[in-house]
Amino acid sequence: MPEQDRVEPRTLKGFQDRLPENVIPRKAILQQIETVLQRYGFVPVETPAIEYLDTLLGTGGEETNKELFQLESPEGDKIALRFDLTVPFARLLAQYPDRLKVPFRRYATGSVWRADKPGPGRFREFTQFDADAAGSDSVAVDAEIMAVMCEVMAALGATDYTVIFNNRKLLDALVAGHGITEPRQQKHVLRVVDKLAKVGMDNVRMELGEGRIDDSGDPIPGVHLDKETIDHIVRFITMAADTRTEMLSKLEDLLPSCELKEQAVIETRDMLEALDALGVDERHARFSPSLTRGLDYYTGPVFEMILPTAPEFGSVMGGGRYNQLVERFMERPIPGTGVGIGVDRLIAALTHLGVVAPAKTTTQVLVASVGNVAPRHVLEMATELRAAGLCVQSYLGPKAGLRKQLSHADHYEIPVAVILGEDELAKGLVAIKDLLAGKQQREGIADHDAYRQAGTSTQVTVPRENAAAEVRRLLAG
Amino acid sequence: MPEQDRVEPRTLKGFQDRLPENVIPRKAILQQIETVLQRYGFVPVETPAIEYLDTLLGTGGEETNKELFQLESPEGDKIALRFDLTVPFARLLAQYPDRLKVPFRRYATGSVWRADKPGPGRFREFTQFDADAAGSDSVAVDAEIMAVMCEVMAALGATDYTVIFNNRKLLDALVAGHGITEPRQQKHVLRVVDKLAKVGMDNVRMELGEGRIDDSGDPIPGVHLDKETIDHIVRFITMAADTRTEMLSKLEDLLPSCELKEQAVIETRDMLEALDALGVDERHARFSPSLTRGLDYYTGPVFEMILPTAPEFGSVMGGGRYNQLVERFMERPIPGTGVGIGVDRLIAALTHLGVVAPAKTTTQVLVASVGNVAPRHVLEMATELRAAGLCVQSYLGPKAGLRKQLSHADHYEIPVAVILGEDELAKGLVAIKDLLAGKQQREGIADHDAYRQAGTSTQVTVPRENAAAEVRRLLAG
Repeated sequence: MPEQDRVEPRTLKGFQDRLPENVIPRKAILQQIETVLQRYGFVPVETPAIEYLDTLLGTGGEETNKELFQLESPEGDKIALRFDLTVPFARLLAQYPDRLKVPFRRYATGSVWRADKPGPGRFREFTQFDADAAGSDSVAVDAEIMAVMCEVMAALGATDYTVIFNNRKLLDALVAGHGITEPRQQKHVLRVVDKLAKVGMDNVRMELGEGRIDDSGDPIPGVHLDKETIDHIVRFITMAADTRTEMLSKLEDLLPSCELKEQAVIETRDMLEALDALGVDERHARFSPSLTRGLDYYTGPVFEMILPTAPEFGSVMGGGRYNQLVERFMERPIPGTGVGIGVDRLIAALTHLGVVAPAKTTTQVLVASVGNVAPRHVLEMATELRAAGLCVQSYLGPKAGLRKQLSHADHYEIPVAVILGEDELAKGLVAIKDLLAGKQQREGIADHDAYRQAGTSTQVTVPRENAAAEVRRLLAG
Repeated sequence: MPEQDRVEPRTLKGFQDRLPENVIPRKAILQQIETVLQRYGFVPVETPAIEYLDTLLGTGGEETNKELFQLESPEGDKIALRFDLTVPFARLLAQYPDRLKVPFRRYATGSVWRADKPGPGRFREFTQFDADAAGSDSVAVDAEIMAVMCEVMAALGATDYTVIFNNRKLLDALVAGHGITEPRQQKHVLRVVDKLAKVGMDNVRMELGEGRIDDSGDPIPGVHLDKETIDHIVRFITMAADTRTEMLSKLEDLLPSCELKEQAVIETRDMLEALDALGVDERHARFSPSLTRGLDYYTGPVFEMILPTAPEFGSVMGGGRYNQLVERFMERPIPGTGVGIGVDRLIAALTHLGVVAPAKTTTQVLVASVGNVAPRHVLEMATELRAAGLCVQSYLGPKAGLRKQLSHADHYEIPVAVILGEDELAKGLVAIKDLLAGKQQREGIADHDAYRQAGTSTQVTVPRENAAAEVRRLLAG
């Protein structure tokens, strides 16, 4: 190919290539998550990467509209890459009401695309893993979603994890008890309270009252509540309780009597009871009265998974109940609740905590050869080892001495080499080398003659029929 | 939501939604394919759905250029959805030469997009599963790819499958023996020969000679070979042999002596020897002298997987050696060989043959309840069954009588129901129903009182602690 036709190999800005050391643990994690979901009665669906633009527009708010990767179909229709998996799920429920009868629990995983500003750990293409349960408005289902969240963490080997949860109706009841029932104002309260961890209590107080001027000098409008209501909200969002029972009784005391209170308290009691029934330990599910989650569409329980020993990763899963899920696509309302797992962030956090072990390869054995051993011997050996269930790469070129073949295995962290030599083959013998143990020793050896004489402790010669068993012994040890 | 804001739920033209009965067997098949690939020393990589346009343009020929889904990056760069997984792999090899040292074997699976005319079984988004081995020019690696193809079929439960294979160099040697060495003319011969099954021998003869007029009246230019050469080619492409040994000796006889012959015959002999060493049965790998595969970039061995008992599905896997793989992106040539599995077509064919069993759900048990059983009892039962490793959906609404709950299980083909009633719970008992066996009987029962009295053979009442064991017994039976 002429030089001028050559193209510089490069990854699209904001996107990422995943090499084996990244993909291997990632696939294992996705598999473990799936297994948990299946145990809770969720089944998989898949939808296209691309949707009609009108299906997506407006569902995620102004910000998301701007971040859509838009294109055109061959027919000239406006289309766009999906930005989440929830909108396509809502579409499915509306499109196949006879096949996807509710209650219906589905999980889905795949890439989603958002054309926002890329940064460290922030990509324009990322993986979501969503689990949603549609059709029931029982908070027992929300509790099951929380149990799923905990069980996923346990399945992945984490021990220190906490679902923080709240119910938006509690705060709604509180402000309603003070005579504030206007939905827009209630939502404003939720948004302000949600900022507690970020801006601190003093700023929250100001925003619940007359508003404030932020650091850049911009005015932030207030909710204009009176002091008594603000004090009451502050008491609520700083409420602490050691047990579920204590928490319920404190809630009863704290909330002013009103119609909404009854419903909010009943839901909370039912949810706590459900968490008990599901065996979710109190230490893994903590009531967090200031959690409301930004999104407008949540209507009741909300929850997030945090890792107390890796707080810098923020929430690695998040969700809640959204009872207007399918309204965009059909008249009949279908209540729903669900969780989205931020797969990339979860993996980053678990890797940081040492819970996810790095794995550069799934290959267990390299079949190497010295001298003029014909390829068919390499293939026969590989076939025997594969028949014993081992994962085997046969070294069939580019032509290289033994040292180079073994350094190839090192590079990819293949733990064992089976080495074929003409003399040994004639006697029905093969050499087996423990590469992880032998890495240091081998660095001093110059060629395959030296290897033959070296006879280090990391290499044994065994009858060919024992090769698979010997490899298994090394892999186990 | 106001009626006028409602959006009609619909799938993009040429795209498909996959509901659980489609996704569940599909995921199992992809998993089985992965397991085979890992056993042969292949490791996974993942690349973005989108590439810079110049990375893709021209790599697949004029046709593919026109079929690219093009869009623009937020920075105004021309970008496009990938149309295959091979070009991104070539880019990877050139971009990460130090990390992806050759020999390197990778597998990759994912969606690819082509904006061509959709039709039955023809989609604009479809799944590819590719396995490629880069860095070695030994035909033993091609033989291993063919072994992979066979082992995938065996792993999926197929018994009647055949890899048909050829080596382009054989035909090149044949025409070179007649003095034709011009690459363009050699390729023309390959293209004509490849059409044998489609257009028949008479038309192939004409196209190798002076050309012909096709059915629509269009002229098809010929290769302008002389009669002797044409006769020779026809003898070659109709050559039949019962064994690998017979085939080799016939090839020796058939090919005219020339420089290319030696190389072509050696490669063929080495490949047959490698197939023997790999234990690939002659019945699963058949020499097919007219197979050349359309694509220009193949340079030697080519192969396809066909299902003799389902010929209408054509080839379900196909590949070959392409030693100019990475030239587009880097100066150093890296030889490669690989296979692409057409996942959708493979699944369609195996389903047609009854090899893939349909599976509507992975859920094994529905926990249902009658009367005023509180949700926490449903959750406790579900938790006990899940702890025993079962996949369980808890029925928590919308509120429904037992008949409706059981018909829900029927709809999703959940095989077993565990039914909780107040009286039974008080006595530590639960009812367990074999829904597959009970489907017919149940259709006559009107309500849960009737169910209670019915006491059909498909339902038993057991102590709660035996529930999981009883469910397992039913699932096994």
